[in-house]
Amino acid sequence: MVSMALNVGLILRLGYVRETWRAEQSLHGFGLEEKSQSRVASMAASSQKVAHVSRGKQVVSIDGTEIEDGGERVINLDHGDPTMYERFWQQTGDKNTFVISGWQYISYFSDVTNLCWFLEPEFAKAVVRLHKLVGNAITEDRYIVVGTGSTQLFQAALYALCPPNASEPMNVVSAAPFYSSYPLMTDFLKSGLYKWGGDAHKFSTDGPYIELVTSPNNPDGSTRQAVVNRNQGILMHDFAYYWPQYTPISFPADHDLMLFTVSKSTGHAGTRIGWALVKDKEVARKMTKFIEINTIGVSKDSQLRAARILQAVADSCDRVGSPEEVQPFFDYSYILMEKRWKQLRAAVKKSGLFSLPDFPSKFCNFSGRTFESQPGKCESFAWLKCEGEIEDCESFLRCHRILTRGGKHFGVCPKYVRISMLERDEMFDLFTERLSQIKL
Amino acid sequence: MVSMALNVGLILRLGYVRETWRAEQSLHGFGLEEKSQSRVASMAASSQKVAHVSRGKQVVSIDGTEIEDGGERVINLDHGDPTMYERFWQQTGDKNTFVISGWQYISYFSDVTNLCWFLEPEFAKAVVRLHKLVGNAITEDRYIVVGTGSTQLFQAALYALCPPNASEPMNVVSAAPFYSSYPLMTDFLKSGLYKWGGDAHKFSTDGPYIELVTSPNNPDGSTRQAVVNRNQGILMHDFAYYWPQYTPISFPADHDLMLFTVSKSTGHAGTRIGWALVKDKEVARKMTKFIEINTIGVSKDSQLRAARILQAVADSCDRVGSPEEVQPFFDYSYILMEKRWKQLRAAVKKSGLFSLPDFPSKFCNFSGRTFESQPGKCESFAWLKCEGEIEDCESFLRCHRILTRGGKHFGVCPKYVRISMLERDEMFDLFTERLSQIKL
Repeated sequence: MVSMALNVGLILRLGYVRETWRAEQSLHGFGLEEKSQSRVASMAASSQKVAHVSRGKQVVSIDGTEIEDGGERVINLDHGDPTMYERFWQQTGDKNTFVISGWQYISYFSDVTNLCWFLEPEFAKAVVRLHKLVGNAITEDRYIVVGTGSTQLFQAALYALCPPNASEPMNVVSAAPFYSSYPLMTDFLKSGLYKWGGDAHKFSTDGPYIELVTSPNNPDGSTRQAVVNRNQGILMHDFAYYWPQYTPISFPADHDLMLFTVSKSTGHAGTRIGWALVKDKEVARKMTKFIEINTIGVSKDSQLRAARILQAVADSCDRVGSPEEVQPFFDYSYILMEKRWKQLRAAVKKSGLFSLPDFPSKFCNFSGRTFESQPGKCESFAWLKCEGEIEDCESFLRCHRILTRGGKHFGVCPKYVRISMLERDEMFDLFTERLSQIKL
Repeated sequence: MVSMALNVGLILRLGYVRETWRAEQSLHGFGLEEKSQSRVASMAASSQKVAHVSRGKQVVSIDGTEIEDGGERVINLDHGDPTMYERFWQQTGDKNTFVISGWQYISYFSDVTNLCWFLEPEFAKAVVRLHKLVGNAITEDRYIVVGTGSTQLFQAALYALCPPNASEPMNVVSAAPFYSSYPLMTDFLKSGLYKWGGDAHKFSTDGPYIELVTSPNNPDGSTRQAVVNRNQGILMHDFAYYWPQYTPISFPADHDLMLFTVSKSTGHAGTRIGWALVKDKEVARKMTKFIEINTIGVSKDSQLRAARILQAVADSCDRVGSPEEVQPFFDYSYILMEKRWKQLRAAVKKSGLFSLPDFPSKFCNFSGRTFESQPGKCESFAWLKCEGEIEDCESFLRCHRILTRGGKHFGVCPKYVRISMLERDEMFDLFTERLSQIKL
């Protein structure tokens, strides 16, 4: 009986690992590339539920071959899954519980008087309040378009910005290193409206183009401006990380088309809600049209939950100084990010094999009010460089059971990797501990 | 003071109507056509919140010109907004209230051991249970792919079924009258992978193609089979309406790729959740990839709420015969649909200007167990024909303040219109009353 149970257990584990490996193949990079690399199997870092299976001595699969793991847990920091924020929300208890009756919000329509007819007014209100409080974006005289994450809004914006009857697809460019999903999101349907044009620094084709400006930048955290700066250029600003826990808020952003998302601002990636602030009415109308054709609007349940979460963040920051209240969300998250960056810099220093970018400190208008010390940049990703003779940093770290995303996915050389800083504490501690001990 | 208030009221109403008219322009047909027709303004039928503004004597806008309405309320039955079900869910009280804490389900990932890594296991379980209970689809040995409505799954399926490196885009066809959004959903991004090939009855191009089979069909409710039937054909079955309230369930559907949605099955259109049952693993994998690139998965909040609703439907049907329990959902909805169809047929008869299709009665394996009488087809849309000399039925009804969707949007002649049968009672009663009194 015991023997049989053990055998069944082994078979189940093998089955689990095979399936996990396949899942990982399809997951790599959130749409990064069709032909995914061979990879270590465990996705344990991404899901608390299955974390136990990758602990201790176990079977894992590399390149489809089962091997003994040797007892070292796989650390997956490839994705920017923002589970770091879970603890903050746990601490708030039932206060931010979202409740919706079976009969509520069943219609397709949210507000037919709004150009974006599927935008829940509660959500729009929460967006405006938070931007005003944080001071990171101008909301006056803008149209708000809600999307199923900023990913859908990115595609909606491409559709809206490209003329429907042009003879050639419009070039879409971004300065390398750029967000690894941009090329595939632009090209996966082989659209006749737009095509990926590569690194903006090398862009020399005449005619109209769209430049994607991600600031702070994913993967390297740099503050970005447009680099092409030609007459027929259209700009799209991805401000997913322009929040006080990641970077000083020096000014309210004031561009034609700006994308934001709850995934990175509050950590609610599973809710799939983003928003665009759009100056031009016709662009907002066409973005709305895209979302109408693509998904007939955006989940109301999610918009309402996101509204509640954004209001909770604003409430926590509005109540600074009141001892009974919950810690301000951006204090909590900035302090944790700062701690992690110190921990990572110490590990990098101890190992001696890697380096990290250094960014100049700036004054943060928002956190200047709440923090005693001057905050620096605490990016959601570390842009780690392998120094010396290590040419392929992703493969090198993979040999140490650390999964990261290599430079070539971001349009640069493989000496760089992107590492998520947003994992749960336990995983992050394990990572810095292991990194600090890596020797050649 | 009174005079000023009246003026302000008039200005506000004018402003409202202008905005509403613009919203309606962009709404027409859920992505039906870019250049929308000139239309009567009121969206009142679509939203209870604003219903009052279209009552009584008021200002509306046709072709952008403000005119006096003459006191007749606009009845909008253009969209299939399933608000009819609201009352059922209200009657269930708090039983189906969905509750989610601020810290729950914040990760991108639902189940990394599943090929569809963003599929919530609770939702998958509810889907399988309901299909088994209703007997409308085989779920054994299928992959379940969840989508942001079946609209997103339709596009995911096109992406999955078309080879990425073909020299020509694949033709996508459907027998007329076909769902009015198919052409635009296929062509709006000018994809190099697929293109709209028109009416399947007229399709004569050689080579591979995809045929969309919607059964019961939107708009006309007919039971459908594939019509092209050639060697290189791939079928996609849209079963949005294959539920007992609309049509007899004669057999569990057993096709390669089948689409379903909560919008039409339970009425929760605002939740934006659909699912696909897929035989082939590679197709399911590529559909998952599409949704990963398009929206990085599907809202967990919505999947969990949809799971609760589907379980509630199944519970209500499992408990037949127990007097304390809630009425079985499909009894409630079928009885209401049957009443509406009787009412509509009486109105059509009284007017003498219109006709409706007649469908043969079939045995329903599901409701045969619960209904005393033999159920017929009670489609979610009425496919009304203007008889005699009325050539443009949509325009004719619009003159009577009834908004419908004309035949040309479905690939057939303008003598036909599609009319939603899923509106709230009050609107539906007003509609049949007005229709019955229309004279030439």
